[in-house]
Amino acid sequence: MIMLNCMNQFSRFLKYATRTTPLLTTRELNVFSKFKSEFKSRFKPRFKTALALSAALGLAACGQSTSTTSEPNGAQSQSSAQPQEKITLKLAHGWPKGFPVFGESVDDYAKLVSELSDGRIVIKVDSANKHKSAFGIFDFVKSGQYDIGQSASYYYGGKDPDTLFFSSMPFSMTQQEQAAWFYHGGGLELANEVYAKHNMEVMLGGNTGMQMGGWFRKEIKTMDDLDGLKMRIPGFAGKVMASVGAVPTNIPAGELYQSLERGTIDALEWVGPGLDLRMGFHKVAPYYYNGWHEPGTELMYYFNKDSMAKLPEWARSVLKNAARLTAYNMTTYSFSSNTENWQTISEQYPNVQVKRLPDEVIKALKAANDELVAKETARSEIAKRIIESRQAYLEKARAWTTIGEKLYLDTLEAQ
Amino acid sequence: MIMLNCMNQFSRFLKYATRTTPLLTTRELNVFSKFKSEFKSRFKPRFKTALALSAALGLAACGQSTSTTSEPNGAQSQSSAQPQEKITLKLAHGWPKGFPVFGESVDDYAKLVSELSDGRIVIKVDSANKHKSAFGIFDFVKSGQYDIGQSASYYYGGKDPDTLFFSSMPFSMTQQEQAAWFYHGGGLELANEVYAKHNMEVMLGGNTGMQMGGWFRKEIKTMDDLDGLKMRIPGFAGKVMASVGAVPTNIPAGELYQSLERGTIDALEWVGPGLDLRMGFHKVAPYYYNGWHEPGTELMYYFNKDSMAKLPEWARSVLKNAARLTAYNMTTYSFSSNTENWQTISEQYPNVQVKRLPDEVIKALKAANDELVAKETARSEIAKRIIESRQAYLEKARAWTTIGEKLYLDTLEAQ
Repeated sequence: MIMLNCMNQFSRFLKYATRTTPLLTTRELNVFSKFKSEFKSRFKPRFKTALALSAALGLAACGQSTSTTSEPNGAQSQSSAQPQEKITLKLAHGWPKGFPVFGESVDDYAKLVSELSDGRIVIKVDSANKHKSAFGIFDFVKSGQYDIGQSASYYYGGKDPDTLFFSSMPFSMTQQEQAAWFYHGGGLELANEVYAKHNMEVMLGGNTGMQMGGWFRKEIKTMDDLDGLKMRIPGFAGKVMASVGAVPTNIPAGELYQSLERGTIDALEWVGPGLDLRMGFHKVAPYYYNGWHEPGTELMYYFNKDSMAKLPEWARSVLKNAARLTAYNMTTYSFSSNTENWQTISEQYPNVQVKRLPDEVIKALKAANDELVAKETARSEIAKRIIESRQAYLEKARAWTTIGEKLYLDTLEAQ
Repeated sequence: MIMLNCMNQFSRFLKYATRTTPLLTTRELNVFSKFKSEFKSRFKPRFKTALALSAALGLAACGQSTSTTSEPNGAQSQSSAQPQEKITLKLAHGWPKGFPVFGESVDDYAKLVSELSDGRIVIKVDSANKHKSAFGIFDFVKSGQYDIGQSASYYYGGKDPDTLFFSSMPFSMTQQEQAAWFYHGGGLELANEVYAKHNMEVMLGGNTGMQMGGWFRKEIKTMDDLDGLKMRIPGFAGKVMASVGAVPTNIPAGELYQSLERGTIDALEWVGPGLDLRMGFHKVAPYYYNGWHEPGTELMYYFNKDSMAKLPEWARSVLKNAARLTAYNMTTYSFSSNTENWQTISEQYPNVQVKRLPDEVIKALKAANDELVAKETARSEIAKRIIESRQAYLEKARAWTTIGEKLYLDTLEAQ
């Protein structure tokens, strides 16, 4: 009460003073206001004790005001736009609790936000074990049921087909190329344009790196080998495979190994060595094919616009930049997991053979993909803009990749 | 004065109270202490005016204490481990003011730290224009003359030869591979082990991406073309070139174009298209060779250990994580600059030809490099550990790159 009375009196003085003269800047008024609200929220519960102790100790109270009522908690928020200092936000991600790489990364995010904000922002993370809806992140954040989400954009083509283009596309950009497109080629602005319609802002969420073309029980030598091939390959790439005669299916993760082992399916794609190793596919389908369908899949952080609008600028900056850093950290971690686990597979399972799809197969897949993409381009004005932006950036970025890293790798490989 | 008297009195009360009973947690005491110092630093200069105005307005001052002396500024820092709330740090980087990519990135760093800390951490950036010592960053931060520095580790081989291995090495890891080594393969720990001897901690500083082998006036067809070739190529790679008969030189940046144009030198390496374009080398030396000597050069942030030890944990976290994010942002920006500028060069200067060094030249350069690295390995126990760690990680990371991104790029290129 002692301090609060001092502060309330000072606050009234400041309000009066600033109506008559610009004595303090708006920034300074905000500092004072934040100050007061943090003080209240942190110290209030103990003030009764403090006051009693103060009296017992015979200390002079500095507050001599006759007013014994303190301002209600909400009052100071009217005198400034600042919210309460301690911010608690709810986050939902689409993976099982502690899921390797993807889920671990979200736990890292919450920890990083807490560290950067000196404990002022608390993020409560709910995994799919809790909210029971692996593909519900879009709706959760759109509705404000959760303030933040992490998932993959291309899971939500059913909600809005324009969300399809912000994870990865067959025959498209690698992780480095796509990150440059997002941050310097207009990609993130386009993603935000799409998600703004759904009351969300977005930030990159971490990249898997090159996804392998998958595990096959038999070698693919000609187009005929694709005919009727039963393969677990969902989404857009599944449509591409269907166009060339394969039979794409989707099967729950828990049943994949058995399906492949028993021949219920002939092939499947999962991610890359980093996540594939623990699934055991290499034991029953020894042909590991080159990537083509997801050359660098980016996850995404979702932020409810209303939740963000209530926050002060520094808090928004912490949330966005922490997401950006977490995304990068996950990308590097994916690379490292792929490195370590490919070493394990190649050393411990000499039966595994890395294969390249025959040129005629690649050609057919690419033609089928181009046709499907052309349909998307015709669908809407924004789909056209996104696809053209991706295509233009791919061309120039690939030109650099080709004379830069690829030429280096080619040169060394020739030795 | 009004508020400060209130606060000083409250502060004395708290100190007394907490000696007798744990009335407030240490954390709460710290909050109060931070508050007071922030209030002092932000509001003090205006208090005289405020007081005068307060009297004129006839407002009752809440501070009725007879004590007119306020605590000296340092006093509250003795009552808690927290430093002053407003933290000001000095940073020196080794580039001209606003230097593209490298220097811009440091300005971004200072801005990011300010944002993330809600203005509580202020970084004053000095460029080489100010401190006049482009290669003095190591000594500046070691001595504490600056709290933070940004430069490239391999500039300091003269100060400590073990610093040579943390930027890039010929025929070694690409940017992605090396980032995984730093963050997940023990690289950053080794760098910190080396720099701890010099009272510094380090964090990655941003990567140039693949550096091109350089601009040559004449094509290199056989080993004979290297004999006596005058080339601007400093450092370790210069030694490698000398081993195969070339004459490496170093020339100030401002004189490079003229030297190349007049034939004072036959070739030079700079960085990659992103930074090379503005130098104009492509106009006078049309052969642009594959990279080999710096396949992904990482800059570095330096932190003086004593400066860091004085800071609270959240501030250290902000400084380190902001560096980590800035480094990544610079890496992506480098990729984008290389992409954009290579497009410009290839479209506007059709005379430019990208070339690959002949196999016999690469073989000779690699043998010379291996020999020089072997000497380094024999030099000290830690040099051996660093080189072996790099080599082991390169092998497994390259295996992944080869079946992942490279196989994808090869497959598409064949179409």
